[in-house]
Amino acid sequence: MLRLLSVNFRGLTEHKTLLSLKFSTSSVMAKSKFEYVRNFELDDTCLRNCYIVVRLDGRNFHKFSEQHNFMKPNDNRALGLMSRSARSVMEELEDITIAYGQSDEFSFVFKRSTTWFKRRASKLMTHVTSQFSSSFVYFWKEYFAEQPLLYPPSFDGRVVLYPSNRNLRDYLSWRQADCHINNLYNTTFWTLVQEGGLTTTQAEERLSGTQAADKNEILFSEFNINYNNESSMHKKGTTLIWEKVNETTTKLIKRPNEGETEVTVTRTRKKVTSHSCDIIGDQFWEEHPDILESDQC
Amino acid sequence: MLRLLSVNFRGLTEHKTLLSLKFSTSSVMAKSKFEYVRNFELDDTCLRNCYIVVRLDGRNFHKFSEQHNFMKPNDNRALGLMSRSARSVMEELEDITIAYGQSDEFSFVFKRSTTWFKRRASKLMTHVTSQFSSSFVYFWKEYFAEQPLLYPPSFDGRVVLYPSNRNLRDYLSWRQADCHINNLYNTTFWTLVQEGGLTTTQAEERLSGTQAADKNEILFSEFNINYNNESSMHKKGTTLIWEKVNETTTKLIKRPNEGETEVTVTRTRKKVTSHSCDIIGDQFWEEHPDILESDQC
Amino acid sequence: MLRLLSVNFRGLTEHKTLLSLKFSTSSVMAKSKFEYVRNFELDDTCLRNCYIVVRLDGRNFHKFSEQHNFMKPNDNRALGLMSRSARSVMEELEDITIAYGQSDEFSFVFKRSTTWFKRRASKLMTHVTSQFSSSFVYFWKEYFAEQPLLYPPSFDGRVVLYPSNRNLRDYLSWRQADCHINNLYNTTFWTLVQEGGLTTTQAEERLSGTQAADKNEILFSEFNINYNNESSMHKKGTTLIWEKVNETTTKLIKRPNEGETEVTVTRTRKKVTSHSCDIIGDQFWEEHPDILESDQC
Amino acid sequence: MLRLLSVNFRGLTEHKTLLSLKFSTSSVMAKSKFEYVRNFELDDTCLRNCYIVVRLDGRNFHKFSEQHNFMKPNDNRALGLMSRSARSVMEELEDITIAYGQSDEFSFVFKRSTTWFKRRASKLMTHVTSQFSSSFVYFWKEYFAEQPLLYPPSFDGRVVLYPSNRNLRDYLSWRQADCHINNLYNTTFWTLVQEGGLTTTQAEERLSGTQAADKNEILFSEFNINYNNESSMHKKGTTLIWEKVNETTTKLIKRPNEGETEVTVTRTRKKVTSHSCDIIGDQFWEEHPDILESDQC
Repeated sequence: MLRLLSVNFRGLTEHKTLLSLKFSTSSVMAKSKFEYVRNFELDDTCLRNCYIVVRLDGRNFHKFSEQHNFMKPNDNRALGLMSRSARSVMEELEDITIAYGQSDEFSFVFKRSTTWFKRRASKLMTHVTSQFSSSFVYFWKEYFAEQPLLYPPSFDGRVVLYPSNRNLRDYLSWRQADCHINNLYNTTFWTLVQEGGLTTTQAEERLSGTQAADKNEILFSEFNINYNNESSMHKKGTTLIWEKVNETTTKLIKRPNEGETEVTVTRTRKKVTSHSCDIIGDQFWEEHPDILESDQC
Repeated sequence: MLRLLSVNFRGLTEHKTLLSLKFSTSSVMAKSKFEYVRNFELDDTCLRNCYIVVRLDGRNFHKFSEQHNFMKPNDNRALGLMSRSARSVMEELEDITIAYGQSDEFSFVFKRSTTWFKRRASKLMTHVTSQFSSSFVYFWKEYFAEQPLLYPPSFDGRVVLYPSNRNLRDYLSWRQADCHINNLYNTTFWTLVQEGGLTTTQAEERLSGTQAADKNEILFSEFNINYNNESSMHKKGTTLIWEKVNETTTKLIKRPNEGETEVTVTRTRKKVTSHSCDIIGDQFWEEHPDILESDQC
Repeated sequence: MLRLLSVNFRGLTEHKTLLSLKFSTSSVMAKSKFEYVRNFELDDTCLRNCYIVVRLDGRNFHKFSEQHNFMKPNDNRALGLMSRSARSVMEELEDITIAYGQSDEFSFVFKRSTTWFKRRASKLMTHVTSQFSSSFVYFWKEYFAEQPLLYPPSFDGRVVLYPSNRNLRDYLSWRQADCHINNLYNTTFWTLVQEGGLTTTQAEERLSGTQAADKNEILFSEFNINYNNESSMHKKGTTLIWEKVNETTTKLIKRPNEGETEVTVTRTRKKVTSHSCDIIGDQFWEEHPDILESDQC
Repeated sequence: MLRLLSVNFRGLTEHKTLLSLKFSTSSVMAKSKFEYVRNFELDDTCLRNCYIVVRLDGRNFHKFSEQHNFMKPNDNRALGLMSRSARSVMEELEDITIAYGQSDEFSFVFKRSTTWFKRRASKLMTHVTSQFSSSFVYFWKEYFAEQPLLYPPSFDGRVVLYPSNRNLRDYLSWRQADCHINNLYNTTFWTLVQEGGLTTTQAEERLSGTQAADKNEILFSEFNINYNNESSMHKKGTTLIWEKVNETTTKLIKRPNEGETEVTVTRTRKKVTSHSCDIIGDQFWEEHPDILESDQC
């Protein structure tokens, strides 16, 4: 199995000789006859000088979350596994500079000048989706321990291009604003159910037509919960970027005519780091100036 | 985590009120401001009345096969796992009528009239890739038992359209002819190494410039191997289709005023079946007339 | 003006030397620096083995027809000019096997195996549009004589692919059915106005909600017009195809030792011919079997 | 001819009644049956926030220029007609902010925020091509007077997107550098032929391998021509932009109890203006800051 050597012996001479063979080699001759089908593949190169965003979404994850007893409104095991899988994508694929995830979705941003896979949209989106999906199953046990994964889950992906830094930042802001809105709703909803004793239908009715202020008020006055003190990861989602980190190790070194000496070695290397902070305002981007490339290019 | 309820309370009134709030709700207002980024997503609908083929290929599977000690030239565990994952794709996704796999690749054919996911290319290829990848990890242990999977593997996918039955059959013939050529080469190569005692470099040189007839001759005269008797799965690859199968079960039924009677119940249901036969010639297609739709449509 | 010789002297040596020149040759050096912008052009190759249809529509032709005093409901000069321009397209561009026009629109069908302009959609549609537009102005005088063309008119074009003969025939049938519906409406409308003395508003109201039968009845009982006897070109539109025609010419030939002899020479050549017949039924296609290519390819 | 009224009476009731009619109305029923073919049209919306460039090129213009006795190396009548046609495009179509032409090509730049024709590539390129082509024939006589146009010429068009101001300026610089290189070559070539008495073959050989400096030297030392003094339009091509211009008109106004008074009225209006200047450097863009939109959007 698995092409173990590249095969490059498809010369013309072979085809002539094959006609006199007794065993079934018609397929060999046939191959060149069939190869025209290659030309039906269409080009899907992404426009240059645009950020390439690949966004993944879980398929039927409402059902998946119930079958796997996810905590509500947020399951930290599942969120951890999503981030772990996203880190696996960033470490395996080139040129992703930032990823943002919330709920059952994750967005990966390739730098605008990337030439990875010749910027072919299908290659980019399927590789991201594949690496994420296989990682999700592979690392399941690290997050869910004894609780078994009941079946292989599926994610869909898409590619969207953004021509300017403003557009890209607005895209990420859109996803983070979505995270906030959903989390405030879900937090209030499940507090009404779990602590307030409402049925899900009653909770839905109670929240119908309410605004952010109303939900904050419900949480605060009825349940003494200040939404601002809720987990950053739940409110802000997870942002992954590459950062230089110092790694310090201690080595014992033996020099001639001396005893062993303990030496501290500090190495700098790039690592994927995780953040649950605001990425809508300017501060994050000023602190990490390397994520965006200049619009002046 | 995981969107548990659809959120549909984004009214205009909310935006006004929010201005007077003390806690950070700027993201809520911001959302509608950011939502314009949605319009950057481009349509990638597949042309109607064409077969949609999604082909997956393993990424860096030469290295992967070595790290996991795959048998050469063919590893039946790996081939079995590939087919198991492909079956999972067919059972989970709609409208795939035939799939063909060999080595580290698998092709899935959606029927030409499918409207699954509105024929959007990105959805089709990422769902196939995702389901396959997560299944590959999920079912690993069933095929590799104690041998651990060292890291999550990745597959890339692509979409190709074929307007006619002839084109589609030629596509599948192309892949099966490719299977044959590679398998004959690999079988001879590894026989020379494993039984003939050649180094891989020597085997490569020995086969350089040879034709199918030469390889058959080497196998036969030097190693007493008739290539025609080799495993069909290795020579022909694996074809998966939907077939009606009869399932017979026995039930004990208790009738009033009688004792228990054993009753045999036969139910017909559609099931994915696996074949290692020639799909280049007409016979396979005549025996399974439901796979193709008429060109007259 | 107009690139008179291909220029192929852009060697590296040129760029070095230029640095020492006094006159402005920065643009020469710059050229290679700027050429990266070429890579922003995206591929738009049409899927193989599909009919490529380019349809043109007049822009603002309601206003155009009024400004140029078109006869109502049909202006034979305008229809003649449309067909003349379409013939010009067929004669200048390769591989168009059939064209169909009605009102201010014309459709051109490239054969499914065409490789003209490498099947690039933009080239195909702009060449058709350009040739049609320049011809429309060029031949204007032949059809409108002394009535001047007031300004250069514009047409838009689009490309649509059809994978099967059935699809293509249904496309052409769709346009011819549209022709019929519009012509019946317009014929009745303008008869009510021109012969019945109604205002356009009254005629519109009178026809509101009527069906084909009603319109036929109005024409017949009120104006003694049998719609079936109306002009075929108005009812069926114009179909252009390539046909072999015999051309007979007479030559005077002088042989040695004889007087002059008159010789009749018949040559067969392909010519664009015009038809106003039904193309929805089978008859037309049976009489012209060369227009369609087999679906079995 | 020409759809004179929008037809919106395709109700279901019509279809039923038609069955009882004697005259051929099958096409009416058929229409709804055929209308599915509409869905084969694919979307080709241009990515938002990118400049949309449509470039036209003359088809077979080498031959065209010879058949119409164009002056060499530059024919001012032809260049004037090209610019006149381009102006017609800018005046008829919305949102083109700058156009650049040289030789038999012209590029039109739609502003990055345009929503004209919903940014559909096919509409944009065919409308530009059509308007240009019909104008070229329409205005021919203004530039070529008695010399007749022998046949309708054709232009092809394409669409290219540029995400940043830098990219767009580099695109225009690329075309202007191309203009310079070709004009220097052609000027030297035709001087050698027309004044130096060389055959075209000899002139080609003489210039083979030469660099810009060599050509300048040939012109200067052998023919006393300083290339820098050549026509700007030939060296720099033609740039069309929109500018506010003051138009002063004189009116005679009659006031009560007074005689007639002559009044000067100055109105500001936008007009397409033509320039033959450098557009590679910054000066042009600083003088016309409204052409580009900010990258910060």
